[in-house]
This record gives sequence, C-alpha cells and structure tokens, in this order.
Amino acid sequence: MYLGSWLGRLCRGLSRPIGKTPQPAWGSLSRSLALSSQRIPELSSFVARTNTCGELRSSHLGQEVTLCGWIQYRRQNTFLVLRDWHGLVQVIIPQDESAASVRKILCEAPVESVVKVSGTVISRPPGQENPKMPTGEIEIKAKTAELLNACKKLPFEIKDFVKKTEALRLQYRYLDLRSFQMQYNLRLRSKMVMKMREYLCNLHGFVDIETPTLFKRTPGGAKEFLVPSREPGKFYSLPQSPQQFKQLLMVGGLDRYFQVARCYRDEGSRPDRQPEFTQIDIEMSFVDQAGIQHLTEGLLQYSWPDDKEPLVIPFPSMTFAEALATYGTDKPDTRFGMKIVDIGDVFRNTEIRFLRDALAKPQGTVKAICVPEGAYFKKEDIEFIKNFAAHHFSQEVLPIFLNAKRNWSSPFAKFIKEEERLELAKLMEIKEEDMVLLTAGEHEKACSLLGKLRLECADLLEMRGVVLRDPASFSFLWVVDFPLFLTKEGSPTELESAHHPFTAPHSSDIHLLYTEPEKVRGQHYDLVLNGTELGGGSIRVHDAQLQQYILATLLKEDVQLLSHLLQALDCGAPPHGGIALGLDRLVCLVTGASSIRDVIAFPKSYRGHDLMSNAPDSVLPEELKPYHIQVSWPTDLEEEEKASATPSNHLSS
Amino acid sequence: MYLGSWLGRLCRGLSRPIGKTPQPAWGSLSRSLALSSQRIPELSSFVARTNTCGELRSSHLGQEVTLCGWIQYRRQNTFLVLRDWHGLVQVIIPQDESAASVRKILCEAPVESVVKVSGTVISRPPGQENPKMPTGEIEIKAKTAELLNACKKLPFEIKDFVKKTEALRLQYRYLDLRSFQMQYNLRLRSKMVMKMREYLCNLHGFVDIETPTLFKRTPGGAKEFLVPSREPGKFYSLPQSPQQFKQLLMVGGLDRYFQVARCYRDEGSRPDRQPEFTQIDIEMSFVDQAGIQHLTEGLLQYSWPDDKEPLVIPFPSMTFAEALATYGTDKPDTRFGMKIVDIGDVFRNTEIRFLRDALAKPQGTVKAICVPEGAYFKKEDIEFIKNFAAHHFSQEVLPIFLNAKRNWSSPFAKFIKEEERLELAKLMEIKEEDMVLLTAGEHEKACSLLGKLRLECADLLEMRGVVLRDPASFSFLWVVDFPLFLTKEGSPTELESAHHPFTAPHSSDIHLLYTEPEKVRGQHYDLVLNGTELGGGSIRVHDAQLQQYILATLLKEDVQLLSHLLQALDCGAPPHGGIALGLDRLVCLVTGASSIRDVIAFPKSYRGHDLMSNAPDSVLPEELKPYHIQVSWPTDLEEEEKASATPSNHLSS
Repeated sequence: MYLGSWLGRLCRGLSRPIGKTPQPAWGSLSRSLALSSQRIPELSSFVARTNTCGELRSSHLGQEVTLCGWIQYRRQNTFLVLRDWHGLVQVIIPQDESAASVRKILCEAPVESVVKVSGTVISRPPGQENPKMPTGEIEIKAKTAELLNACKKLPFEIKDFVKKTEALRLQYRYLDLRSFQMQYNLRLRSKMVMKMREYLCNLHGFVDIETPTLFKRTPGGAKEFLVPSREPGKFYSLPQSPQQFKQLLMVGGLDRYFQVARCYRDEGSRPDRQPEFTQIDIEMSFVDQAGIQHLTEGLLQYSWPDDKEPLVIPFPSMTFAEALATYGTDKPDTRFGMKIVDIGDVFRNTEIRFLRDALAKPQGTVKAICVPEGAYFKKEDIEFIKNFAAHHFSQEVLPIFLNAKRNWSSPFAKFIKEEERLELAKLMEIKEEDMVLLTAGEHEKACSLLGKLRLECADLLEMRGVVLRDPASFSFLWVVDFPLFLTKEGSPTELESAHHPFTAPHSSDIHLLYTEPEKVRGQHYDLVLNGTELGGGSIRVHDAQLQQYILATLLKEDVQLLSHLLQALDCGAPPHGGIALGLDRLVCLVTGASSIRDVIAFPKSYRGHDLMSNAPDSVLPEELKPYHIQVSWPTDLEEEEKASATPSNHLSS
Repeated sequence: MYLGSWLGRLCRGLSRPIGKTPQPAWGSLSRSLALSSQRIPELSSFVARTNTCGELRSSHLGQEVTLCGWIQYRRQNTFLVLRDWHGLVQVIIPQDESAASVRKILCEAPVESVVKVSGTVISRPPGQENPKMPTGEIEIKAKTAELLNACKKLPFEIKDFVKKTEALRLQYRYLDLRSFQMQYNLRLRSKMVMKMREYLCNLHGFVDIETPTLFKRTPGGAKEFLVPSREPGKFYSLPQSPQQFKQLLMVGGLDRYFQVARCYRDEGSRPDRQPEFTQIDIEMSFVDQAGIQHLTEGLLQYSWPDDKEPLVIPFPSMTFAEALATYGTDKPDTRFGMKIVDIGDVFRNTEIRFLRDALAKPQGTVKAICVPEGAYFKKEDIEFIKNFAAHHFSQEVLPIFLNAKRNWSSPFAKFIKEEERLELAKLMEIKEEDMVLLTAGEHEKACSLLGKLRLECADLLEMRGVVLRDPASFSFLWVVDFPLFLTKEGSPTELESAHHPFTAPHSSDIHLLYTEPEKVRGQHYDLVLNGTELGGGSIRVHDAQLQQYILATLLKEDVQLLSHLLQALDCGAPPHGGIALGLDRLVCLVTGASSIRDVIAFPKSYRGHDLMSNAPDSVLPEELKPYHIQVSWPTDLEEEEKASATPSNHLSS
C-alpha cells in the first residue's frame, strides 16, 4: 500500500484499508495491539504530550491536552487534522485576533510539519461528528501552538507515491514508515515477539541467550557471508543460524534456550532475498518430537494477535509421503482441496495408449486433480496449463471436462469407457462444471506436477473471483517423517542431508543407517502455514559416534571443521531437539503483507541493496589494508559492472 | 570461578560461592530468578522429567518423580548426586537383586554422564539431613534408571580446570557453562532483559524494532568490520550502533523505539575487546534530557534483580566539569570519597617554590586528595604512586603525612606554616593516620592525575583489607553538560565531536556555535555505575540546516555519506533523543563477574578469537572468488604470522 492511497483513505475517514487481509485502521491500532491480559501501556509517559492524537474520545471532553504530531491536512485555515501513529484528531484553529500567533503557526506550516498543540477537548457541533473517524466525536480548541520542525521539502509530491515503485518507498523509507500499514505491521511484529517471550521466559522458564554472529565457516557453508579479520587470510563468517551454538548450550546444561536470532544468508543469485533475517530459535534438552510440537503450538496460540481468530491447537500433521502424494509438495496449502488422486485403478484396462504405457512401467502411475468450475477456464488458460507442464516437467497433462451438453469434452473422451467415467466421477467427486487434470508417469514426478498445477489453477480461479485461499484463514500443518538423506542430484551414489547433518534418525530406522541409509526417516518436522514453510526443527544426534558416522562415512564431510561439536557430544550431551521459526515470514502471513519487505523496518531490495543509504558501497583501498584484502576486479569489467549496476529508482536494484 | 572449585563447593554442600559479590547458590538460583509479580514458570513442561533436581523439598514427599540430569558424584555405590541447572539431589541406588539393572546403570555410568531416574521422594533418615543443601531433607529412592548418554571422555581431569587458564574455560565452553556461576550469570541476564522488555513494551508502549546490521560505512567508521558483497568493490559494513536507523525511525513516526541491539566494533589493536556486543538501544520523540533520564531510571529500577537491594531513584547527577574537578574523570566511582580538593588558597602565600611557581601561572592550581589510613602505606607503595605520576602524567606528586608523633612527616613539612597546616587539615578533614597527596599544575591535568591516584590508592587500601568499593553497593550517577566538541589532539584548530555529530547543543549555548564552538555544551548524558560508563545518550539535532553546519562547516565531514539522514531531517523530523546502555557491562557489574566474558555465553578471547571453534579461520581461495577479493599476504610474512598466531591454549590468543 502506498503513501498516497493511505493518505487518501485517511482523509476520507474510511475505516478499513484495502488489503489482502482485513485489518484494523488508524485509531483501532492501539486497541488491536493492546495487551489482552495486562494494563494498557502508558503511551505519553516521559514526553511533551499529554495524550496521543488517536486516543481522544468523548470521555476526554473538557480536558486540557497537549498533542505532538504531523500536520496531515488543513481546510480553509479553520481546521487542521493532526496525526501521530495512534490516529488522527481535528484541531480548530483559533480565529480571534488575540490568537494571531497561534493562527499564523497553524496556517503557515506546510503539510507534514511537526507541531505541538495545546488546547481543550470539545464536542463537535451537532451534525458535524464523523462516525468513521475514531476521534470523530470531538475536536481540539487550540490555545497554543509551537512549530517543532517545518517540513521544508518532500522529495516528491506525496500523492505521487501511489504512482511510484516499491523502490521509491524503500529509498524514502522514513516517509513510508509513516503509513498506516507499516506502523501496523511493525507494531504487530513487536507485540507478537513480546508475547512469545512472555510465553517462553515467564511461563516456561526458557533462557534468552545471545550467540555470536562472528563465527567460522560451517561445512558446506557456501551461503555464509565472510568478514575479514585483521589477521592475514583469516575470516569470520556470519552464520545462517545458531545451530551449533544452541546444541553446545544443551551440552552446557542450559536446557531451555531461545533467542530471537539474527541470521545471515548470502544467496547471491536468488532474487527476492533478504541477506539478514530473523528466526525464533528454540532448543530443549530431554524432549521428543511431540514435546517440541506442543511447545510450538502453545507459543503460536499465546502470541497470536488479538484481532485475529484464536488458533485451534494441536495443528494437524501429515507425513512427507502423504503430503507429496496428496498435494505434490512438502508444504501443502491446506486451505483448499483439489487433492491429488491416484486413478491408476480406474484405467487398469484402458485403451488409451499413453496411460497404458505409463501403467506398464514399474513405477508408473496415473494421477489427477479435480479443478472446481474448471470448465469455465478460457482456452488460453488451458494452453498455459499444458505449456507449464511441458516446460517445467517435460510432462503431458490431459484436461478432461465433464459437461452435460458435450459429455466428456476431451479429445480422449471417446476412449474413456462408461464404467471408467462413472468410477472416476465417483472417486473424484466430479461435478458438472469441473475440470479434471490428468497425468501419468512416475509417482513423485506426477505428484509434483499436479501440485504445481493445483496452485496455478487456484491462481486462475481466484482471478475469476472464486475464493479458495482466504487470507484471513490460517491453516497450520506439521509435515513429518522426512527422509534423512537425499541422493545428490547428478551423483546418485552420494548422499546429502535432507535438512542438516545433526538431525537424528527415527529410532525404528536406525539399523538401516548401515545398510540402506537412503531409506532412513529423520526426526525432522516442518511447520507449514497456508502453503509456506514457516520453520522446521528436529531431534538432534546426541551420540558422538553416530554423529561421526553420519558426517564422515555417509556424508563425506570434513569432520575437522566440527571437531568441537563432536568432542562436546562425548562429554555428557543430553538428548535434545529444537525448532526455528522464520519471524519475517510469520509476520508477513499474519499481517497479509505482500512481501516480507513490508514487515521489516529497513529491508534490502530485491538485489540486496539498501536503497536509502546505498549499501553496499565502495570503500577506499586504504580501508581494506588493515584486513589484508584487495579487490580482484573482474577482467570483463564492463559486463560485470553492468550486471551489478545500482540504479536507485527501480526495484530490480 | 573454575569448574573444579564449584564442583568442590557443590560436593561440600556450601551454600555460598566465593565471589566478589555475595550471590545465591544452586537451589536458590530459581528463587532468585523467579518473577516477583507473576506465576512461577513451569520448568518441566514438554519434557521427559516431572521435576527439576533442585526444586524437590519435603513438600514433595511420597511423590513419584522422574529426573534428568548429570551424575555429579557417587559414593560407595549407594548414593548418587544428580545435578541439573536448578540444583542437586541425592539418589539412593537400590541394592536388592531385582533392581540389578538399575544398580548397574547408576553404578557404572561415569561422572558427568546424563541419566534419567524415576523414583519416590522420601525423607532422609534422621540425622542425615543436609541443611546446607536446599534439597537436603529428602532423597530419591530410585526405581528405574536410563543412561541417556555416557560421558565417554572429558578433555582433562575435571579438577584440573582449577589450575588452568581462562583459555581452557573458553576452549571447553560447553563444560564451563555447566558451572553455577555461568548458569547464574546467563540466567540473570535473560531475566533482566525480559524485565526491561516488560517495562518498555508493556508498561510504556515502546516498539521493539530490528534494524539492519548489514549497512554502509559511516563517516569516520574506521572501527567497522567490512563484509564483502558479490558486487566487485562493494562492501557492507557492520555498524557500531543503530544510531542512524533509530533517528530515521523517529522521522518515520515510530516515536518510542527500543532494541536489544547487536553491535560490532573492530578495535584491532585493543586487548580485552569483544568484537560484538549488545546494547539496550532506546529512542523517543518529543522528549527532553530529563525524560530520557527518568525513563532510564525507571527501566533499571524495574529490571533490577530481586536478590539485590532495590535501586533508589532518581540517580544523582553531576556536570562534566564537576566530575573532573572532584574525581578527575568523567566516570567517577562515587562509592567512596577521597575527593579532589583545590587547595590553592591554602598556599597563596607559600614559601614552597614549586607550589608558588605553579600558582603564579595563569591556569595554575594546587590540588590534593586525602587518602584515609594512607599513613600505613609501605614505602614501595609511595614509590609506586610517585612513579605512576611521573610516568603517566610527567607530574610531581607530594605525599604528606599527618602523624601525631612525627607531626607533618614529609620533606616539605618544615616549609608548611602552622596556619596552612590547620587550614589544610580543616579543609580536607584530615585524620591522624591519613595521607595527603598533593600536586600542582594546570587544572585538568592535576585533576586527571589525582583521579587516577585516587583509584590506585583505593586498590592499595583494598589490598590491605579496607573496604572502599563494596561490590554489593551500586552507585549510579548521571554525568551531564559535556562539551559538544573537543579540539583534535595535535591539531588544536580542528574540532571533533566529543561523542557523535548528531548530539544537539544546549539551547542556551547555541549562539556560540557560530563564534566559539569549543565552548558549546552538548545535550549529552552519560550513565556511570561504580566508576564504569554504562551508557550514554543525547538529545539529537533535528534541524537539517544545523546538522549540515555541524557536519560540514565545523567537523569537515563528507556530508554525502549522510545525505539520506540530512534529507530525512528536512521532511518533518520530530525533536528526539535517546540512550544506549551496554548490556554486557551492566550484567557484569550486577553479577560481580570479573570480566564481561563471564556474562556472554560464547565470548571471544582477548584477541578476538573463538577458542572453541577456532574462529576466525582460513578459507579457500575459491571461497573468496564470489566476493571479488583476494588476500594481500603481508610482505614480511613470517613476522605477521608470528604476530597473529592462534595458539589455542593460552588466553593471549
């Protein structure tokens, strides 16, 4: 949402912003952020104001108040609307000669100037109340006014903001932060984190421990930023998570650890990245998977904003295998159906050649999803779906329509036998206006394709006005029983960790580690919300020999880099496990923001730049000297520079 | 405190550790950390135990409990002492044949192994209670036992720890963390921070906002670590504080900000540094100096540990000039006297030449401190004091003794007239066994010298058993009215900021900015605790023109680097100010730890190394490639390597 649009909305006194999620507007902000259980915070202690603009009501009538805020709007040199984060209030500019200086200040200060106004809270004249404005029953009869800072220039006409890109919002972030939406998002974030802390520290005895961010490279830490030290050739590294430290804390007997941890990840080539992000990082000793899950459910329920529906716990759970078979992904959006169905049995005797061929193969399956009201898709939508399948999965997909008039409206319709038709309609609960998307092939590939098409179809349906994914609905899901290892792409005899090498195997699969490690399930659990992976965790390996075997024998890692951890496990390490939740993503989903950039005060752009200050920036060669490094300028300088140019006014930078 | 000593203490059941500060011991830890106002946290929710070892009392008699902990100690295969962070409890190893497997586990597991024990809480036999042990009235009759992890080896005999250096503690930090002292320090730190958050968020409506740590260099940011980006020649920088961001948040209308902020400072050459540290970072709009001071006092009072005397607020305040004149420093330790006295008047007609000469000069003064019981100092102490003055200040210092027998026992005594003697004794309240240290010269230099000698004498007196600086006493002090600028050393026509260039001048001095800027006082305030600077803050410049004048004209800084801030000030920046408190230092003083390394879970060594993981470490040349940097190996390689060698077993690394 852009500055222009909220300004417009504010002036019109609308009570609901136009956002993906219904949210409270100015004035109800503080109510929605108020503590459910405790006293209301004092918002004007220690400062020059007696009240916030947004809190004044009829109950304040007759009170002498002092307000500090920004001039939002002025009308006919008579009324002035003053704004602070809490809301808007109308100020009456005095017209009598004795108040000439007050009038001068309030009439001459440009919009967005900061003023201090003292006066009396009075009723609005009958008929002039504004029911859409939380302070709309009252106004302030100004007695004194002080210009605290004139807004000397805005970098652009503020209403232009609406026409500008997100890049302009990021460049002038200090103005963008004045918007209702950013105030709401950041305040809600703070509130949620505070309640998480109350839950963890005050209710369950967790200890908030800060771990270092200047660390050393972890094995395979290609995504870790380096920090040159003053020792030649020696580098710190900014860790991707406090994983090692939190395990070492368990060995150290700090049996309930948490941290709101800053983490770093250098995903050079990936767009829409934040090089630094925040996770709620938790670790416990003497715990099992169910324990961590219960804790996490309680944590989210306790910290869930008061202006949303309370969360129902426990969250449903699904195995990785089930998620893949039913939704074609390990992070299913369970707000809607369109589940994948195995329809191989229906076509066991089919005459359709490509299905018969597929079923004849050892891993062959036939799968389908039923798209409700898919019969109304346009021809180009169907083309898009087919191209998507061909392009991303080199796979054929067959749309089948059940249409009363045309019967099975598909080139293949005539090859589908009547009993197949009936069986399929029954199995998939196909209604007349639905479309079936059918594909054949190897289980995982077929499921993945249909999982993607399910989301693409949801997009298409929502563009037609069908509400499938209510942004105000929050579907949490545990996904469990992941494989512990994956075979490396392009090198099927080598294994890599599905998550990380510290994940403990399922106790019932542990014997397979030495025979068929690729079949071992890990004690790993992912938490998924509305199709987004919110976080994950695991029970860890606490046995040094087992950890050594996994690292050295199975994963062929350089164990030397982790010798301190292996040694620690041999010194009386308790069984332990934990979880990490992505805070930025969580708040993004809760607020309905369109990007995590809207829940971070000063985010980096798509390409990792701070568009306001122009970071990263050049430094002088002498500044590199103490770190014993020098720049290796690329040989094809022009091309590199082109690729890394930093234009400040479009988002791609 | 070393592992060996606390182990010993624990086994002897002593109730008080031998520390600088009286502190609670195991078992009382949770009580001292309990919330004063709220429910007691559940310490065993979600996990395999029913209780902590340390919480069991007579009130639990007859209960079936399950405990998880470390084997602290075993006696005659009959008793076993089990430990968790909460305390110790005695377990009775069953002797009957049917419990052979339980007995085997509990008798064979090495010390520091992790076990789970279930059993019944029973009374100790009469006469066998241990009143020094919080759980000393009861013991656990074990029914089942499980070895969760054997302690297969300790890197050294645990009792050797006592003989080892701090380097060994840091290398095996995960063992050191099991000590009572580290558990106490880290848990107290967590608790204090939580209460600070409650005060700021819940009581006063502050918003916890995370600001970036990947930023760009600030002007003069020589102490900022660099982080190479994937764009050739472009670097992020790890900021020393969120100063710019918090000011921009004020411009953005987030009028009550705080953050427990990770900050970075690369003080290459300074020993005893922590390259990363934590500050409680606060900023408010529409506030004045008194407002920030009241907030800070309330914050500390609210978060002060329950096991200490409550803080009395407001804290006393002193101008910089007064602090210098009275204590010779801007961070006076006000727990004891020995104040500096200007005794120039006493000697206005002196015959002592060096005093007469000093007083004849335009800035000449004669100053003294009275050291109580200083007459008992040894001759070498006096020599040390004189040498200290000569060596560090090129200054003469004159010890004078008032001794009944010897009268004025000083070589100069005979030149001191009777009326001078009386006047001096009266002015300085000199007692018979006191020593007066007298120096002459320019005001600031004389005060600085006596300020240092005051602390040296306090050390000497404390070595003799005189308690001057009670570690259990906490003397907070505001120091205010600092000069805004200092003249640069070696270049007296150039100015530099006394603190930072964003500090607002005193409103009554503002006209001097354009005529005598060196006379302008800043709206800066330091908070001092027991002679340590705990933090500081200021009211900031919110006027763009004034900020531009200070940066460009007075300080000759490159304004371009701060153009975003200057532009923001012109867009309706509210008046604002704030403070930052050093959390590590605060917790260090509160816990009486001897170093901030003892209040940080994984600190860096003296020279900035992580001795446990060996960070910073070498990286492969190909890992530098994506960052377009290469190492410039020093030409005198041998020497450099020698200087930066990383021996892992002594603290100097």
